[in-house]
Amino acid sequence: MTVEVQALTVDVFGTVTDFRSTIIDEGRRLAESRDWPEVDWGQFADRWRGGYEPAMHRVRMGELPWTAIDPLHRMILDELLADYGLDDLDEAGRTEFNLAWHRLQPWPDVIGGMNRLKTRYIVAALSNGNISLLTRMAKHAGFPWDCVLSAELARHYKPDPEVYLTAARYLDLEPDQVLMTAAHIHDLEGARAVGFRTAFIPRPDEWGPGGEAEKPEEGQFDIVARDFHDLADQLET
Amino acid sequence: MTVEVQALTVDVFGTVTDFRSTIIDEGRRLAESRDWPEVDWGQFADRWRGGYEPAMHRVRMGELPWTAIDPLHRMILDELLADYGLDDLDEAGRTEFNLAWHRLQPWPDVIGGMNRLKTRYIVAALSNGNISLLTRMAKHAGFPWDCVLSAELARHYKPDPEVYLTAARYLDLEPDQVLMTAAHIHDLEGARAVGFRTAFIPRPDEWGPGGEAEKPEEGQFDIVARDFHDLADQLET
Repeated sequence: MTVEVQALTVDVFGTVTDFRSTIIDEGRRLAESRDWPEVDWGQFADRWRGGYEPAMHRVRMGELPWTAIDPLHRMILDELLADYGLDDLDEAGRTEFNLAWHRLQPWPDVIGGMNRLKTRYIVAALSNGNISLLTRMAKHAGFPWDCVLSAELARHYKPDPEVYLTAARYLDLEPDQVLMTAAHIHDLEGARAVGFRTAFIPRPDEWGPGGEAEKPEEGQFDIVARDFHDLADQLET
Repeated sequence: MTVEVQALTVDVFGTVTDFRSTIIDEGRRLAESRDWPEVDWGQFADRWRGGYEPAMHRVRMGELPWTAIDPLHRMILDELLADYGLDDLDEAGRTEFNLAWHRLQPWPDVIGGMNRLKTRYIVAALSNGNISLLTRMAKHAGFPWDCVLSAELARHYKPDPEVYLTAARYLDLEPDQVLMTAAHIHDLEGARAVGFRTAFIPRPDEWGPGGEAEKPEEGQFDIVARDFHDLADQLET
């Protein structure tokens, strides 16, 4: 496989970033600066992230027109603020809090492992996040992407086949020359369905301390790697 | 201006890369390995590069369907090889020679100046080159793009307004928050026409020794900088 694959397309939320800690930190800091009641920011973070699949589903079903992730995150945030009784946050405060998604921190293995992988492969982001979000996040977190690809380019969300096929087209590669790398089975299954190679990296902490990594079947994906360093080892970079 | 501008979109061929030296070097190396007559590789390089505007014009006029730069470069190469009597180059050899455009060398000021600019601004490629070409070129030459944007995303070539407006949209910025940076007046005029800020960097060696940089009118563009270090100085990065 190492001979044929020329590029890795890498999922972002959960696979390379720890969204939960960042959202919790930013929520706490915001609450300290305001007269807010006690909030379970872990639950808030999980609900914010959890609102994202249903919101994308509304786009997929045509209930909403094509909408980038930034405004989808904002719609979910507005609902959550109402639910938690934090409605007093003004427009500027909401805009700023929503940008927490641009400031997510990487998992500790990612930057080092990615720099090793880059010596041999194109390493591209392939996220449902919009390009401006991914670009700003990369500057903040230090992701050394060779290029930033996004569901936005296909105006479809993963795991729709259009997203993977559009990415392969922009890379000028056949699907089997591209290795989709993610912590999520549905993303890898979507990629595999159009002929991509697949690498699974478990992220047991994605949903916080008591959470569990997804568990693919034996042989379901081409590679299972502990983290990005292990992936670099397995790909001999 | 430094307060408002958030991103630089940077032209590639001629502005950050010395296409001529690379094409000459690769042509000479190819000729040495084959039984080829004496070729003026400087002239060959200039004609290859010079064929690019007319080829894009054929796309713009609808005479050709949307065609990425890689296949346009290849069309021009096939014509040149015939003109120079080098028709014996086989398909694999032509494919490989055409990829010389993925291996262009940067002008000496570019990487250092760009790294300074990146500390404060998003620095994105915005080229008529296709994304896979720009991505591979960046890996080879070391361009530290925050993201790779291309005319390919708009399916229009610069200086068509769609290219600049598409780039601003993917960056989620207003046109006047983006500084188009180029060595070519027509590119900057295209950007200015849709509201971009503009920075001109002269490249007197683009067309080889004896060539001249383009000469904008006094005040035609927001910034004129000697090179990328001077641009970083003027933008206080």
